[in-house]
Formats: sequence, C-alpha cells, structure tokens
Amino acid sequence: MKAAILGCTGYTGLVLLRYLLNHPEISEIIPVSSSSVGLSISEYDPGISDKILTKKVKDGLLKSVDDAKKSNPDVVFAALPHLESAKICSDFFESSVIIDLSADFRIEDGELFKKAYGEPHPNPLLQKEAVYGLSEWHGEKIKSAKLIANPGCYPTASLLPLLPLLKENLLKEEIIINALSGISGAGRSAKPNSLFVKRAENANAYNPGTKHRHQIEIKKELDFVTSTETRILFNPHLIPVRRGMVVTTVAKLKTEVNDATIKGIYNKYYANSPFVNILENSIPESGDCIYSNRCDISWQLEGDSIILFSTIDNLVKGASGQAVQNMNIRFGFDETLGLSVNGEL
Amino acid sequence: MKAAILGCTGYTGLVLLRYLLNHPEISEIIPVSSSSVGLSISEYDPGISDKILTKKVKDGLLKSVDDAKKSNPDVVFAALPHLESAKICSDFFESSVIIDLSADFRIEDGELFKKAYGEPHPNPLLQKEAVYGLSEWHGEKIKSAKLIANPGCYPTASLLPLLPLLKENLLKEEIIINALSGISGAGRSAKPNSLFVKRAENANAYNPGTKHRHQIEIKKELDFVTSTETRILFNPHLIPVRRGMVVTTVAKLKTEVNDATIKGIYNKYYANSPFVNILENSIPESGDCIYSNRCDISWQLEGDSIILFSTIDNLVKGASGQAVQNMNIRFGFDETLGLSVNGEL
Amino acid sequence: MKAAILGCTGYTGLVLLRYLLNHPEISEIIPVSSSSVGLSISEYDPGISDKILTKKVKDGLLKSVDDAKKSNPDVVFAALPHLESAKICSDFFESSVIIDLSADFRIEDGELFKKAYGEPHPNPLLQKEAVYGLSEWHGEKIKSAKLIANPGCYPTASLLPLLPLLKENLLKEEIIINALSGISGAGRSAKPNSLFVKRAENANAYNPGTKHRHQIEIKKELDFVTSTETRILFNPHLIPVRRGMVVTTVAKLKTEVNDATIKGIYNKYYANSPFVNILENSIPESGDCIYSNRCDISWQLEGDSIILFSTIDNLVKGASGQAVQNMNIRFGFDETLGLSVNGEL
Amino acid sequence: MKAAILGCTGYTGLVLLRYLLNHPEISEIIPVSSSSVGLSISEYDPGISDKILTKKVKDGLLKSVDDAKKSNPDVVFAALPHLESAKICSDFFESSVIIDLSADFRIEDGELFKKAYGEPHPNPLLQKEAVYGLSEWHGEKIKSAKLIANPGCYPTASLLPLLPLLKENLLKEEIIINALSGISGAGRSAKPNSLFVKRAENANAYNPGTKHRHQIEIKKELDFVTSTETRILFNPHLIPVRRGMVVTTVAKLKTEVNDATIKGIYNKYYANSPFVNILENSIPESGDCIYSNRCDISWQLEGDSIILFSTIDNLVKGASGQAVQNMNIRFGFDETLGLSVNGEL
Repeated sequence: MKAAILGCTGYTGLVLLRYLLNHPEISEIIPVSSSSVGLSISEYDPGISDKILTKKVKDGLLKSVDDAKKSNPDVVFAALPHLESAKICSDFFESSVIIDLSADFRIEDGELFKKAYGEPHPNPLLQKEAVYGLSEWHGEKIKSAKLIANPGCYPTASLLPLLPLLKENLLKEEIIINALSGISGAGRSAKPNSLFVKRAENANAYNPGTKHRHQIEIKKELDFVTSTETRILFNPHLIPVRRGMVVTTVAKLKTEVNDATIKGIYNKYYANSPFVNILENSIPESGDCIYSNRCDISWQLEGDSIILFSTIDNLVKGASGQAVQNMNIRFGFDETLGLSVNGEL
Repeated sequence: MKAAILGCTGYTGLVLLRYLLNHPEISEIIPVSSSSVGLSISEYDPGISDKILTKKVKDGLLKSVDDAKKSNPDVVFAALPHLESAKICSDFFESSVIIDLSADFRIEDGELFKKAYGEPHPNPLLQKEAVYGLSEWHGEKIKSAKLIANPGCYPTASLLPLLPLLKENLLKEEIIINALSGISGAGRSAKPNSLFVKRAENANAYNPGTKHRHQIEIKKELDFVTSTETRILFNPHLIPVRRGMVVTTVAKLKTEVNDATIKGIYNKYYANSPFVNILENSIPESGDCIYSNRCDISWQLEGDSIILFSTIDNLVKGASGQAVQNMNIRFGFDETLGLSVNGEL
Repeated sequence: MKAAILGCTGYTGLVLLRYLLNHPEISEIIPVSSSSVGLSISEYDPGISDKILTKKVKDGLLKSVDDAKKSNPDVVFAALPHLESAKICSDFFESSVIIDLSADFRIEDGELFKKAYGEPHPNPLLQKEAVYGLSEWHGEKIKSAKLIANPGCYPTASLLPLLPLLKENLLKEEIIINALSGISGAGRSAKPNSLFVKRAENANAYNPGTKHRHQIEIKKELDFVTSTETRILFNPHLIPVRRGMVVTTVAKLKTEVNDATIKGIYNKYYANSPFVNILENSIPESGDCIYSNRCDISWQLEGDSIILFSTIDNLVKGASGQAVQNMNIRFGFDETLGLSVNGEL
Repeated sequence: MKAAILGCTGYTGLVLLRYLLNHPEISEIIPVSSSSVGLSISEYDPGISDKILTKKVKDGLLKSVDDAKKSNPDVVFAALPHLESAKICSDFFESSVIIDLSADFRIEDGELFKKAYGEPHPNPLLQKEAVYGLSEWHGEKIKSAKLIANPGCYPTASLLPLLPLLKENLLKEEIIINALSGISGAGRSAKPNSLFVKRAENANAYNPGTKHRHQIEIKKELDFVTSTETRILFNPHLIPVRRGMVVTTVAKLKTEVNDATIKGIYNKYYANSPFVNILENSIPESGDCIYSNRCDISWQLEGDSIILFSTIDNLVKGASGQAVQNMNIRFGFDETLGLSVNGEL
C-alpha cells in the first residue's frame, strides 16, 4: 500500500514517517514538504537511517504535493497547519483515503469552527464527509470513511475517560479538565516560548477556561456522543517534558456509585480496546506510556465527585499513533499493527 | 544575632543556610545534623564556599543538637521531619524564638492533626503557643510569637490567592485546587520515585482528593481566617522541575463581579506586601519566581466561575524564604532583608 | 524459542524484556528477580501492558532462578550485578546459551580482572568459554559461542570508531577518550547521586584517567584485536539525559591521511553492518540514536591528529540491544530482528 | 553611580540587570534595547519585579542608545552581538568606562581576529585601549582601563586552571580541552537548534578542533601571559542544562610533579582570589557553582599527564558576573560586591 505524508517535517509528520517505515502493509511512502522539496530526510533528521528510509521512500528525498498527487497514494496523512490542510486535502479526496491531523475537519458546525479558529470553515463541503477519528468510539464509521479527522491530543486524553461515564448518565453537566502537555505539543517552529532555556525548570497554565480551541472540540464531541449539554472548564498547562500528557478531570456524580460500578462501565466500553488501559489501584504517570499508543485511565471517588486520571503520549495516541490506528481500522488491518502497546523506559 | 538550623542537610536546611550566610543581621550560625556531626558542610555540599561559611559557622562543621543548645541561639529554625520536630523544639522553647518548618505545629486541632498525620499531636502543650506563619496574614501575631509554624508549600501557594476573595465573601464553599510541584518537594532522601531517570520526561497526579495532608492544612486555614466552611478538592501533581510550584484553582462566585473588583480586592490586601505580585494581563510561570520569595498571582473570570493562578518557588516562599521573612518580621527587620524579590533567569 | 532474563527489574533487564516481547522468534520469557519473585511485572513497571506481557510470560509474574532452571531456556540473558553474574551463569552453562550483560566475563586476564574489579575472577573456568560480544567484530565466534560477554556501554561506543583505524595501523599508541553518559548508566538503585534534583542542571567528570573499569576493558580489546599496545586516557562524565552516550576521542596519526582514506577504511569494516552509521559531513548527536541499536560515527582531521565522534543509546547498543543483536547472530536470525535502526524523536 | 546596559534583553543583559539592581554602588541603570525601546522590562521579563526595577530604572522601561548617551553613564556594559558592539562602544569611549561582553576587543591581532570572526576588526584604534578582563590575571591593568574586553565563557573556564601551570613552565605545548556548555551559551534568539524538544535528552560535540572562535581566544591569552607557543585542540559540546560549564583539560607534564607541587602553584596564584576555589579531593560539578561567580578547579596526575577539571556558570563567571567583578575592580569596590561566592541549590 502507498502512503503520502503531507507536512512530513513537523513533529507529527516525522513520527508518522517512523511508524510507516515499520508498518508491514506500507510498501511506499511519499514524504511531502513544500518548503524542503529535494532535501534528504536522513540528513535533515539524522534519527532516520538512510538504509531503512530508502526501502520505502524513493531517493530518500522530500517531495512536493504534485509528486504526491502523481504517485496516487492509497492513503494521505495530512500533518499540516490548521486552515492550510483543508485546502490541500480536497485535491486528494477523490482518489485517496485522507487522514487529517489538523483541526480543519474536527468541528462540523460552521459557527463553532469560526469561534474556535477565528475564520470561516475552509471547506464546508468536504466537512460533510469527515468522520471524527477517535478510534475507540467511531470505529464503525471509520471503516468506510473517506476523510478521517484525527482528534487533538487534549481531546483524546480528555474524552476517553469521560465518554463512558457520560454515556451512562453518571455525570452532571459541569466538568473541570486540568491538563499538562509536553513541549512537543507546541510544534517544531522556532518560537521564543519553546526554547530550552525558557521551558526547562518552568511550568505554567496558558489559554485557560473557555478560550482554548480544544475546549470546543471536547465539548462538541461529548455532547455529540452522549446527547448531553456539558459545560467544560479547560485548564491546560505546559510542563518541561518532550512528550507526554496528563489529564486530571473533576466532575459531579448524579447518583451515588462505588468503584465496582465505575470499573464495570469502563470494562463495558473498553474491554476489547487494545490501547485503553484501565488501572484499578494506581494513578497513571505520563512516562509509562511515552512512545506507546496507549491511554492509561484510573479514577478516584470523592464524596459526590469523581476525579478521572488519564495519560497519553501527545505525539502518539494524541496524533500520529492514532492516525495509524485509524488507517489500520479503515483498511481492515489488525488495530495494533505497527504500533506499540508498551511504553518505553 | 545567633541562629541555629536543626536538620541542616535537607534541601530546606541548605537553602536556609545560604540565606542566613547572606543575612546582615545574623552573625553566627549553628548548623545541626544529628547524623552528620563533625562533617564539613562545604565538603558535603560543595555549592557552599568554605571561605564564606567560616565567617559565620565555627570550624565550618555540622554540629549536634547539644552544641546548638549550649550556644544559646536567638532563633532556631527546625527543618526536621514531621513528628520529630515537635520533640526537639520544646528544648529550645524557653530561650529561643522557634521557626518550625515541619508540619508539627500547623494544625491546632488534635483530631484534625491525627487525621492528617496518622498519629496524635506530638506536643499539644506547645501547640497553644504556635502562630501560623503565613507572613502576609499573621504579621501582627508573628511579631510577638515564640513559636512560628511555617506553612507548607502547597498551602502557601493556594492560600495567598484564595484568602482575600473568601474574606470578601465572594466565593462559594466548593473549591478545586490543582497543583504542580517540583521534585525538591519530595525531599532529599534517596527514594526510587525521586530518581532522575524516573522523574525526567514524566509527570503524574498523586495523593489526590481529600487524602493529601496539605488539603487539611489549606482548609483549616481558609476556615479559620474567613470563618467559613469550605470544601477543598486538592489535586497535586509532580512535574520534572527542581524548584517551582504552579497552582490553578477553580471556584464558583457568589455574585457577579468584574476584573476591577478582583483587582481592587487584591490591592486592598496585598498593596504593601513586597512578595505578593499581582499580574493583570498575564498568567504567571513558575520559572519567573524561582530563587525568589515571591508569589505571583493572576485570575480569569469564566461565567460564574473564577480561575486563580499562583506560582512560588517551593523551597523559598514555600519553605526557607518564608521562614526568613518570618524571622525578619519577628525581630523587627525589614521584611525583605536577605531575600530576593526578583526571580533568577 | 524460550528466553530467561536474570535480573529483570534493572534498567537493562526491563529494556531487554521489551525487546523480547516484540521479538518474533521468542515465544516464552522467564523474567527472574530473586528479590521480587511473584510480583506482577506490569504493576511493578506500568509501562509494560499486561495484555502484551502475558502472551509470553506465564502469569505475568516475576520468577525465581529455580523457575528459570526448570523451564530449560534456550537462551539466558544475565543482567545481574558484577561478580554475582558469574556465579549464577554457571548453572545454565550446560543447557543454555548465555549472554551476560555484566562485566564478569569481559576480561580474560585474571590479574587485569582483579585490577579492574578489586576481587579475583569469580569463575576462571567458564571464562575460557567466553566470547567478547562486540557484534561487529566477533560475529564469527559469536555464531558458535556458548557464553557471550556483552560489552559495556563506554567500550562499545569507544571501540567501534577506533578499531578500524588501529587495525589499519593509522594511530599512535596514545589515545584520549572523552565520554558523556546518560544517568541510566548508573543503574536503578536509589542513590543520592542519581536523584533528579542532584542530576538535573548538573554535569561532571568522574572516575577519570586510568581508574575507570571501562578503561581497562577498552584497552584490553583494542590491544587484543589490533595486536598493539595502546595507552588510554579515559575521561567519563555524567550529563542530565536519561539515555544516550557521546564519545569524543583524540588520537595522533602515524602518517598523513585525508578524509577519503578514513572514509574508505570505515567502509571496508562497516559497509555491511546495519547498526553502524558513518556520517560524512556532520557530527552525531546522542538524541538521534536513542531507542535505536545504532552507533553513529564521524571524524575530523586536525593537523597530525584525528578527532573521532561516536554516539549510542547506552541502554540499547550499549547493553540490551547489543545483547539481542548477539542472540540474533548466535541463533542465525537476521541481525536486526526485533531491533530498531531508526532513533526515536 | 550610573550604569548603562547595551543589549539588555539577551541572557547576559538580563543577568547583568539583576546584578546591578542589587549592587549597592549603582544608583541608576539605563537598560538599552534598540529593538524594544519603550517596552516595560518587567512585562517583558516577569522574573524582574517592577517594584525593585523602578528604584533604579526610570519608568521601568527599555531605552534607546541615545537615551543612554544623554544620561552620561559612568560605566557602560555592552552585551551586544559580535561586530555590532565595537561600533556602538566608540560613542561612549570618551566619557564612560566600557565593559564589553562581546568578542570584539578580545583579540588584539588583526589577522587573528579575521581568522576567528571572518571579518576585519571593526575598530582597530579602540582595540589598543582594550584590557582583557580575566579578572584574576589582569587586575592591575583593569584598575585603570577605559575599555575592558570581558572574556568568553569557554576561555574563562579553560584559562584559569591552565595559566598557573604554564606560567610555572610545567606543561608541554600540546593541550586538549574538552568542554561542555549549557544551552544559554547559544543565546536567546529562537533557533531550531535551541528548542526544548531538540536539546532535552540530547548532547553533541560541535565546532571541534581549531575551528572554534574560543580556541583562538584561549591560545592567544595562554601565549600572551606565559610567553609560550601552545597548541590547543578544543572540543566543545552542548549538554541539556540551562546554565553551567564543565571543562576537562589534558596536558603533558615537562617534569615529574606531585600533588603538593600543583597545590602549591595554585595557592601561589589564587590564594587571594575570592572566586577561585581549589578542590583537593574531589572533582567539581557544574551544578555546585550555578548562580555564583566562582570557578572550581581540581586536577589528577596520570603518569606523564595531568587532567584539569574546572567548572563555572557560563552566564556568571563566564559573562555577566565577571563583568561586574571587573567593574568592582575598576572602580575600587570590594571585588565580590553584589556577587555571590556560594552556588545555589
């Protein structure tokens, strides 16, 4: 199978490339970077070995969008900036399955999109075809999707523990989500705020409350799946790790429950999900799931409240890993093919 | 003036020692470590220069508790483990002012103490003499205190933004405190959980909800100062910084307010506090106040909720710096003497 | 094929376990830890998923040495402390291929061993059977070895760039090796020197000169392979990374050479080595080969001197990865099976 | 006394500002940044408290070069990029003492300068007035200097241990200097190579051999002070610390010496230097001198070689701290005024 990666030189693109180089069902990769066409990937990113690269990438060089079109890929991963993705994706829509890692197709509602991104939706027509790629919840639709909107990292880590409990009508509408993200979440461009000297030995909240785009994506999905009307207060923080995400969520319970109830519910929804890991007697640590496509979940009951704990690797289950998982589902491969369930030490 | 430091070889003891070596009103220091009597401090902690050390520490060596007693210090800083401190402090009570950095005298109520620390209060008699050393709130009492219970780091960073708003009757009783702490908060003993390989590239919640001792200390102080009955949900996390603490607090407002109201209230309470820094248009970052005794505070209104942001250096305003500030207040020195308001780069 | 890991709970043991869980030729693993028999690995190290673990590890539990003996493994990896390994390994010698990751069988000469480790060789008889497991240099012997002494991390990263040049008689006898190691090299026991607060924002030389054990291992191997008599000055440093090793070596040239000569020599020795990566126009960075079994090498000519640069992941090519590579060679599998040539981002 | 800081918004400028705000002899500071005139420093760098700032900085705002000229400062610190500094400094030469932290006046020889910086010396006339500001070696000249060329960080840490031994004719001409630098040494501009995700968990050699500019500065100074003709092989590395520098130097001895000889020599040269700290039985660690103006030095004899170990904080003794030390010397203040000898924890 042939795959193109649009925007191959960002963090998510480079992680995707590594997964596809290892993936047994992918025989050819077209790595696209408009700004670096003709550059050798392994010189540009020496973590990738030329010997491995050239088995699947012709010449080992970065290609143009046109090169990608001509090569007629079965699947196109778009790891492009928001608002740019939607424009390029339409060129591939007729002939390829598209897995879009930007936010362009995550929010169906035009007004909501504008609220979140400050501009009108860049491609409302294509939007209608989009399936929200939260693999554990929309697997059936993903199987036949032509355009998969891969979820954001914060939404993935927030939604997975919340959805079952909301679906079972256990939670009141007001939910406070506190999240910590690794610095790779800010992307690979050279911003003063992403410098080592700025970020090491530093942490802070940013874009809190209802201002953050991911708050809108989370609420939209919660309300869509569970037919509720939640109110989300979302407080993201930056912490000095390269990869990793920790989410601590507080919600009020509608009725009294015990640990067995919660355990039963998570089992009901995730017993067959290879990448969702329910911990019963401990709180997950982000370091345990880095380099893995796993989401670790646990909870603690506190009077009439419940605290939910969840961790992912923001670049894997929060981006490129889930994209590969969605490709696996879409093309009928084993869901875990080419992905790791174990975290690295 | 003569000062003794009991437990000089822990992080808080060593930071205290640095402050006292620089403090113009301290002429002699007796650094005590029962387990390392006779050891040279500068060999043990090469960050401290022998040339500077010996100007105030006789021989430059660690001393015993008996040495400290014989030297008859004006002030005793106890940087000892919980439950151990109360026993040793009583020996110095008659002759010295005691500033206790352990938790032993922070909670007046015997039952509450037992709930928090699992054992009966180690010295209920002395407890009656203790003043809670949150400098900005108990300055008057500190001026004549014989025993000052220096607050914990989480309580300091949580209480400073909350107290004015509760005192002005603005907040409902339910408060969710989300906190991130640097690894030095776990102390200097060699635990597997504090290893570099374990902590770097890792973050996690721990002891959440009502289980954490600091939750009890926070609630006790909030209720005491403001005569309310709050409900605190406290979610602490470990993040890979050496020093620093970030607290993000969510509370419901009793009435509609605007930013000017909040600003006015903080001004009312902190206009003359050199170490409380109210930010109007930005969210504080922990890296800006490391090595400073400052607490940076800001807020954001979100519908009927308010989010409070506060940062400190857990070893300074959260421990040794506030202890020196309390000494300054107690002995009539300028509150900032020997302390820094600026954070280091 | 059945594999046992003795000392499964150290860093090298846990990395080995991950590799073997992914290795297509390994069907059963017996993870041994004398001090933690009966403990669940996935509870103990939550990075490993129970679902994956139990496919190859019976019950998912840590086993005893006796359990390992009874299960009659085809290959035994000994990731035990020095001097302890040799004792236990002999029990498996008759029936299993042993790959020893300790230093116990790396130095043939009894006197040299005593100089390096302060005690007599723990098993001189077995020593005679040992093959030094520097995969790229002793592949032929490894193919039929019953006992493989897996090299140390410093020796691996130092020897790979030096051996071809010495073998071609290009270098004078005096060699200065400067090395930087990640903190995982110090092992997983809770030592004050390995704490996060101690190691972050810190770096230092340690055990320099001829004192370091690895200096003896390096010299022994250089002299053995090239029949020379080198003089090694070895200066190791600790730097605050979890994984990774950077070696910068300076040697005098016997004759004038140019870059083409050096390139030719490295091609001669390493053209068919999948894990040795010769860089022509850049200096390797340790971050590019973490989580990979690669050794990146480059050089710079400076008058009558040559500077050699090499990087590895100390836990992979410097320990567990090379052990798996040696197993692959020994059992006739593809050398790269179950290992990664690409580094992770 | 009045001080201007040209280039106040870089790391060295901001560290300087902190020192001058604390310095008892400085009553007014003019912080200059051509690109940010009118910006509030404390908003721009929230680590600096407005309350402290406005005691010495008018309005608390960044000023223009013209503002600095008009205010007629007693001392001007130039923390500007190389080649830019020399142009601006001449405007202040008649009226102010200049302490230049760039490399523009460090190398007297025009040809050597061109070799190091690729362009002709920007101000050969002014160069004649420049005194190389290695405080411990040129104190007498600094006392009356009008223009002080503050040394680079690598040269400072390399020269301090070497100069006494070369001066005493102990070392052969060939010297290998291996150095590790914190990331702040790369400056505050937003380069891809300085990003957190790039630098954390990474280390590498760069600009090795005779290519590095600091190699020329080191050799020039060694040869000037000791009237020798050394050959320096300089191998710098980047390691993931914010501040700190570790230098490990290897040289051949001309004659047999013992530890007492070396100790005696260091005592002879540094007994009265408050910031040079000779360790006898241990190897210095960079973390022990961060935030201090100290240089820690030790050594190890190895046959006919000696290994020298030295550490500094690259932003303090390697830049802004030494600049303040030079100001203290120049204006007759105590050498340590406003500086710390103790490192911070």
